[in-house]
Amino acid sequence: MAKKFSEMHNIPYYECDVTKQLAVPSIMKIAISVSEHQSDSVGVTDDFIHSFGLGWIITQHDIYINRLPKEGDKIKVTTLAESYNKYFCYRRFWLHDEEGNELVSVLTTFCLMDLEQRKIASVQEEIMAPFHSEHIKKIKRNDAILPINAPTDEREYRVRYLDIDTNRHVNNSVYLEWLLDTVGYERLTSHSIQRILINFNKEVRYGDVVQSRYELNTETPDISRHVIMNDDIVCAEANVYWK
Amino acid sequence: MAKKFSEMHNIPYYECDVTKQLAVPSIMKIAISVSEHQSDSVGVTDDFIHSFGLGWIITQHDIYINRLPKEGDKIKVTTLAESYNKYFCYRRFWLHDEEGNELVSVLTTFCLMDLEQRKIASVQEEIMAPFHSEHIKKIKRNDAILPINAPTDEREYRVRYLDIDTNRHVNNSVYLEWLLDTVGYERLTSHSIQRILINFNKEVRYGDVVQSRYELNTETPDISRHVIMNDDIVCAEANVYWK
Repeated sequence: MAKKFSEMHNIPYYECDVTKQLAVPSIMKIAISVSEHQSDSVGVTDDFIHSFGLGWIITQHDIYINRLPKEGDKIKVTTLAESYNKYFCYRRFWLHDEEGNELVSVLTTFCLMDLEQRKIASVQEEIMAPFHSEHIKKIKRNDAILPINAPTDEREYRVRYLDIDTNRHVNNSVYLEWLLDTVGYERLTSHSIQRILINFNKEVRYGDVVQSRYELNTETPDISRHVIMNDDIVCAEANVYWK
Repeated sequence: MAKKFSEMHNIPYYECDVTKQLAVPSIMKIAISVSEHQSDSVGVTDDFIHSFGLGWIITQHDIYINRLPKEGDKIKVTTLAESYNKYFCYRRFWLHDEEGNELVSVLTTFCLMDLEQRKIASVQEEIMAPFHSEHIKKIKRNDAILPINAPTDEREYRVRYLDIDTNRHVNNSVYLEWLLDTVGYERLTSHSIQRILINFNKEVRYGDVVQSRYELNTETPDISRHVIMNDDIVCAEANVYWK
């Protein structure tokens, strides 16, 4: 069984949006921070990964939101590196309230990138063993992401200095910020999000200007379809399930 | 003597920049969060302030940086509501490392705004007494902010959904993000900041597009001069002292 790792987290106002609820990009910032602490605790530090010439990249988040915690709430963040196959590592996250109710669950898919060749590398047992992660043969089948046919709206975002992390790439949580921001204040404050499925296809770098495009149509009125483009390159695709 | 209030804070990666140092806007997010906790602890909650028809606004930060803490560091954040006169409340913040060394100190000036008339209101003793804040007659004289003569560069920022706080105004920390972002990667990663003096003149709202303009000149080569404009309106002016 994969090792569980938990941390308590107090939610400050600046991780919330105008509704005083935890902002969706903050969910992934907090979650990834806790997974880094687990990695450090079992000795699989960034330096250890770099010693193989590798670096972690995130290829997908599948985020299920039951209820968002609020400013001032104390939550429990739990993670485990559930399983891995030749190329993909599957990590789960849960946010619980103080009474033990599940608020959010996330399945995140990681890959290891060869930093010199800029190609996906196969996962080495040495890296996953300390997490007691199960080696599986199967590659998990992902739900298809509904594509955009006729965009409802589009906005442009120039990468800001604080959008990039220590790899000099835009942090994955910023894609969530871009795609939700494009939807606008009215929908964000009048609807709640049940699920976000996002695939990361291509890194975005400092100096880039991306286009965040989305579609809401009558065929699937509760699902918005999103894409983050860097000129002709699809950097991310996502579906957001609303209620 | 004004009541001191302290909290410990662990710095996650997402409050840092590409150098793994605490980002300057994060300083003020963390500081204001701690001052809100003090206010709540003495019963001067937002609801209590609203019961007078008032709301807090920040008119100035004067931030002195000795050394920035890093990702993973545990810091102590201390604040006290030092003094107040007819219209201004002066609050101090300190960040210390675990050995007690001072990392950052801040003097922040607050006002109370009449929410209906949108005008500055006089400070009522009832609001400040629980902090044991000293009533002073004097209005502190502020250092002059060097103005821009010939802008070196300018960037435009459209307010994002997560830039606004529960007042539906842009959070004060975002002005710092805008003005530093305009300076660009090269300077931000090759120089360190010793002091930022920023005056907030006018609120910025959702939907606004601001211009962040700065000047670096040979007359004062270690001081950059900044202004955040909303068309013709000066929303903030700042000087950043570099080394």
